[in-house]
Amino acid sequence: MAERHIGKQTVIFKNPPSIKATASIVGPKEGKGALRQSFDYIIPDELWGEDSWEKAESKLVRETLSKVLQKGSLSNDQIEYVLGGDLLNQCIAANYGLRETDIPFFGLYGACSTMAESMSLGSMLIDGGYADNVVCMTSSHFCSAERQFRYPLELGSQRAPTSQWTVTGSGAALLTSDQTGPYIRYVTTGKINDMGISDVNNMGAAMAPAAADTILTHFADTGLTPDYYDLIVTGDLGKVGKKICLDLLNMNGIDLENRFNDCGVMIFNTKDQDTHSGGSGCGCSATVFAGHLYKEMMKGNLKRVLFVATGALMSPISTQQKESIPGIAHAVSIHRSLD
Amino acid sequence: MAERHIGKQTVIFKNPPSIKATASIVGPKEGKGALRQSFDYIIPDELWGEDSWEKAESKLVRETLSKVLQKGSLSNDQIEYVLGGDLLNQCIAANYGLRETDIPFFGLYGACSTMAESMSLGSMLIDGGYADNVVCMTSSHFCSAERQFRYPLELGSQRAPTSQWTVTGSGAALLTSDQTGPYIRYVTTGKINDMGISDVNNMGAAMAPAAADTILTHFADTGLTPDYYDLIVTGDLGKVGKKICLDLLNMNGIDLENRFNDCGVMIFNTKDQDTHSGGSGCGCSATVFAGHLYKEMMKGNLKRVLFVATGALMSPISTQQKESIPGIAHAVSIHRSLD
Repeated sequence: MAERHIGKQTVIFKNPPSIKATASIVGPKEGKGALRQSFDYIIPDELWGEDSWEKAESKLVRETLSKVLQKGSLSNDQIEYVLGGDLLNQCIAANYGLRETDIPFFGLYGACSTMAESMSLGSMLIDGGYADNVVCMTSSHFCSAERQFRYPLELGSQRAPTSQWTVTGSGAALLTSDQTGPYIRYVTTGKINDMGISDVNNMGAAMAPAAADTILTHFADTGLTPDYYDLIVTGDLGKVGKKICLDLLNMNGIDLENRFNDCGVMIFNTKDQDTHSGGSGCGCSATVFAGHLYKEMMKGNLKRVLFVATGALMSPISTQQKESIPGIAHAVSIHRSLD
Repeated sequence: MAERHIGKQTVIFKNPPSIKATASIVGPKEGKGALRQSFDYIIPDELWGEDSWEKAESKLVRETLSKVLQKGSLSNDQIEYVLGGDLLNQCIAANYGLRETDIPFFGLYGACSTMAESMSLGSMLIDGGYADNVVCMTSSHFCSAERQFRYPLELGSQRAPTSQWTVTGSGAALLTSDQTGPYIRYVTTGKINDMGISDVNNMGAAMAPAAADTILTHFADTGLTPDYYDLIVTGDLGKVGKKICLDLLNMNGIDLENRFNDCGVMIFNTKDQDTHSGGSGCGCSATVFAGHLYKEMMKGNLKRVLFVATGALMSPISTQQKESIPGIAHAVSIHRSLD
């Protein structure tokens, strides 16, 4: 039996990797949201000097990598791997954003679960002795996502009350074998979960069952109970999906009410920013983790966090072909210290 | 220093994972090609009973997973992870093909390098003690790829002499901690490499520099010389890219002429199948490895193979925005025995 695998879907680290530094760059709307104080940089407009939204998203990736290396006092040639991806077709935000870095690259696609996926694999690469320094990162961009997944922005389409607002932003975490903390102690890898939801304006409902399944499996595999964590935080379920996830957990005898939140609910002022159910996109959980959550852990306000990024694995083509929306969620268990 | 990392970009395994079984399912054209005897199943037509090419590609994934588990005498619940991806927007071939498997899933995007990427990460998960059984797999489909990347098939567009033919097929490798062999001893992970090629009808030229770079780095990192391998095989450079890769290696003092080939050159009868420069797509290297190469290793005809899958990391959007085509290549060193 694989010595670092416990239960059905969980890995426990022998040499828990540290998150030495994080970086986050967000768009102007995110820069007016509830977590505006926590980001490293707020870009002045959605193009940031580029001539397309896609190129602006690549610039977010490039500059966020540069920022996290600067904060971790490391240069490109000290990084063994970058793991990352994004929502754009063929992951061009990451591919073009990272092409000049000269760092070995593992491209990932887990939709909005990509931040937790990259941290899961990145942790294994460090704990297993394959690398000393790894950058895990993702991005998303409201305008490039709208153009690709929905309607031309110029149409000014009305949004459904259950819809979410794709975050413009990129977040990165620098994982190292140094014993600096915060530490990643467990990861629980999700399975694809399709409950038949087919409303592309309600991604939260499509992803909530995957989130609940991964959270339940994490507790079953580790023997931990919810009170072990100060916060269990999903990626981008939004208000609608968060409620469904809590209900599903309750039905399974787990009450997380007072220690549960969702990055999509946290990032905007949902009352006055007109983002309906909340934020979404790979950049949502990535920037909320790299900005707000990491800083709260470093301040000691959060000692143990279960970070559960959630992804909806459909495409416009699968929707046109009348497919439902599969979801996935990966959990990363982060500890301020190894006490 | 990370104990299993050698040189700049290479990992050496302490407990080399075995490739216990492989499976390959291909389309009708591939089933008339030079390697037709080596595949497990040839589908009767490009739809295979489905109502879209995309759904047929998902079925290729689903059935190839099923076949590799059957050949390895394992059930779904004995597999800790599937790692895979494909070329379709948001990787829907893998996401929909695997949604009923109930196996934890890491989605990857490395364009046509995905098979080697999945085997690289899969090997680390086994060698590191995170899993005992992992399936690494990819797919591509001529018709779904043409629709997405090029023109409607109904147009009957003329193809450039340098163009390649996307393979319809899915290939899978079942990696285990059992000591059955063939063994994966090293992996060399590629960097994104963009030499400014912007002709989307000449992917081989765009990917060749990445392939040459990874091969040169593999030899530099390991201290091995080309005569160590019976075969060094790239993924889908095609005839044009293969020639460029050989030239680049020659310019760097390495002559591979008599032990070098390319899966894209091998899979079709390029003289009479009208595939111009040869095969391409994630499914090209995946099915040639899972079919022909693995069987030749099991027969003892190939003792050591360096498998170097190659990917072009662009999208139609990046092409419309006048970007050049970045390439990447990952190398997996496979040994029939540990002598």
